[in-house]
Amino acid sequence: MSDRLANRRQKLLRVVKRLGVDALLVSGETNVSWLTGFTGDSTWLLLGPKVCLLVSDGRYETQIAEECPDLDVVIRKPEVKLHEAAGMSVQSAGIGCLGFESHVLTWAAVDDLQSAVPKVDFRPVSGQVEELRAIKDVEEIAEIRAAVDVAIRGFQVIRAMLTPEMTELHIAHELEQTMRRFGAEGTSFETIVAANDRAALAHYRPSRMPIGDCSMLLIDWGANTAGRYKSDLTRVLLFGKPTKKLVKVYETVREAQQRAIRAIRPGVTCEEVDTQARGYIREQGYGRRFGHGLGHGIGLDIHEMPRLAPNSQTVLRPGMVVTVEPGVYLPDWGGVRIEDDVLVTRDGAEVLSQALPSDIEAMLVD
Amino acid sequence: MSDRLANRRQKLLRVVKRLGVDALLVSGETNVSWLTGFTGDSTWLLLGPKVCLLVSDGRYETQIAEECPDLDVVIRKPEVKLHEAAGMSVQSAGIGCLGFESHVLTWAAVDDLQSAVPKVDFRPVSGQVEELRAIKDVEEIAEIRAAVDVAIRGFQVIRAMLTPEMTELHIAHELEQTMRRFGAEGTSFETIVAANDRAALAHYRPSRMPIGDCSMLLIDWGANTAGRYKSDLTRVLLFGKPTKKLVKVYETVREAQQRAIRAIRPGVTCEEVDTQARGYIREQGYGRRFGHGLGHGIGLDIHEMPRLAPNSQTVLRPGMVVTVEPGVYLPDWGGVRIEDDVLVTRDGAEVLSQALPSDIEAMLVD
Repeated sequence: MSDRLANRRQKLLRVVKRLGVDALLVSGETNVSWLTGFTGDSTWLLLGPKVCLLVSDGRYETQIAEECPDLDVVIRKPEVKLHEAAGMSVQSAGIGCLGFESHVLTWAAVDDLQSAVPKVDFRPVSGQVEELRAIKDVEEIAEIRAAVDVAIRGFQVIRAMLTPEMTELHIAHELEQTMRRFGAEGTSFETIVAANDRAALAHYRPSRMPIGDCSMLLIDWGANTAGRYKSDLTRVLLFGKPTKKLVKVYETVREAQQRAIRAIRPGVTCEEVDTQARGYIREQGYGRRFGHGLGHGIGLDIHEMPRLAPNSQTVLRPGMVVTVEPGVYLPDWGGVRIEDDVLVTRDGAEVLSQALPSDIEAMLVD
Repeated sequence: MSDRLANRRQKLLRVVKRLGVDALLVSGETNVSWLTGFTGDSTWLLLGPKVCLLVSDGRYETQIAEECPDLDVVIRKPEVKLHEAAGMSVQSAGIGCLGFESHVLTWAAVDDLQSAVPKVDFRPVSGQVEELRAIKDVEEIAEIRAAVDVAIRGFQVIRAMLTPEMTELHIAHELEQTMRRFGAEGTSFETIVAANDRAALAHYRPSRMPIGDCSMLLIDWGANTAGRYKSDLTRVLLFGKPTKKLVKVYETVREAQQRAIRAIRPGVTCEEVDTQARGYIREQGYGRRFGHGLGHGIGLDIHEMPRLAPNSQTVLRPGMVVTVEPGVYLPDWGGVRIEDDVLVTRDGAEVLSQALPSDIEAMLVD
């Protein structure tokens, strides 16, 4: 494990040198965790050719000793603030030009830091660790695979358990509890369970309303493994004989998703993949009803790089794992979204969630 | 409800005028929610004497119309970024000097905003909405009371359910599921369940180890109501006959907590309350073993103002709700923390969690 972590820090070090700063102050919680193995918070990593140092506090002294045995650590006293302790470390490392994560640190934190070491030249840096994190290694892919598998098992149990009396919230809670029984730490985000017209709201929170005799039930869920890797899936269950309109919408979304997945391979831009789905949905007359991006990376965070979206020029590379989740939402009627997790392989793509079919027949309940 | 919300915005408007800015851009998610009733994210509120406007996107159009019927809204198009849309609103409102939440917005977001409206004078503002939120109104106190009650009911069920075979994680999960049955949305933070020496780690994550025949079991948990108000409690269950050392530590923490609670009344500073507990623990010889603050406000967030801690000069006022949670942690041995939620009343304090006793007899299991 520590070799993997050292290797990640080596990669970042090359970025630091390319940026022309003496060190980078990594403050994003997941970024610090990915680079060091530390799983707590309120801890920053100062990394440069001449320095590799965690700045933390007494609550985490034991934990850091266990999780990061080969890293130098500064444990600040309770009366010393984090930015002050970081400032002192910057100074004693003789850093003249410091990169900071401008997309993570608040304006006030940067201001405090600058006041602590007024002679240091501060350089905003954005998304560099996230870019490295976008390419998953073998162990990370295995973790995401486990997160996908446990999510699928949970869904299958819940599907078998549904009754009209269950509320959306009850379904969401049972799903989480079921995934925990299979080894998950919990959900990777707040589960969406939305019946009928509620499925038209992309960011719906499950209500205390029974699903009753709904015709469609959208479930968007994911599992969090013990190692904190995440999955993210969506299926729409169909009850009774679906109307022609519902079949048309469902088949449109599914075909859009299949086209996008077929387009995934190394060297293709994210925008090209997005266009495959978006173009097809537009052709079918639902262009204005697909108002969000096609997908996003998953890993330690539920939203990572790259983004599959219009104007996203990122080029796909082997080891990236992305969601592919087109949707069509018709206000006051309902919505269909189909979401799978896809690994970019050396010569194409592997749908990690292929064990859970999404063709319309597989979604029919009764 | 909308009267309460309008009243909150009126209070903030007085602050805005006092700060001498033309408007404040509120970007903290909970701050926006507290001021408007909106429960989504990625949405900012621009508030000044001449402007009161939400800036959001298409995902939330319907939700804002339902949750904030009397507010003006700008729905940005997908190709317009949030800071660009906010910039346009700042410009069309004729704002020359804009306050921004410097403890919330990232450095990069402020930089983007300034580029969008280069002629506007930006003024960092910190913690003003949080200061207003520290004083809870009658409905908010009722919500917190409900969050406390459901947490207590959940704990009582779990206590009755414990077996040596249960793992810490299993206990944490069952506790959450139980609180959900009683109406909670879930836990208000990640539950801590720590047996024996693991109780010495203040930020422990429950393991997959069975509690076995442990002598002490620390549980730090809270519930989240449907309205998103939170409770935060800690108890330490004692199995079998406690050793003299355990009795001494337990009684020290409990007496420290009682002294602190007795000191809570309007007009007293947070530091004075902290000193009551900290001084007593020091007298008993455990001064270096209590390494965190005494408590914090609770509400829509799990950590709110005020902070009960050394150097915290905030003066307690009626309507504040704080945790009081002294602890003594002995490495490789274990730890005791006792935590209750306390309302500052007109002439003293009310322990909202008093239905759950914490005297040592009440903690003995068997």
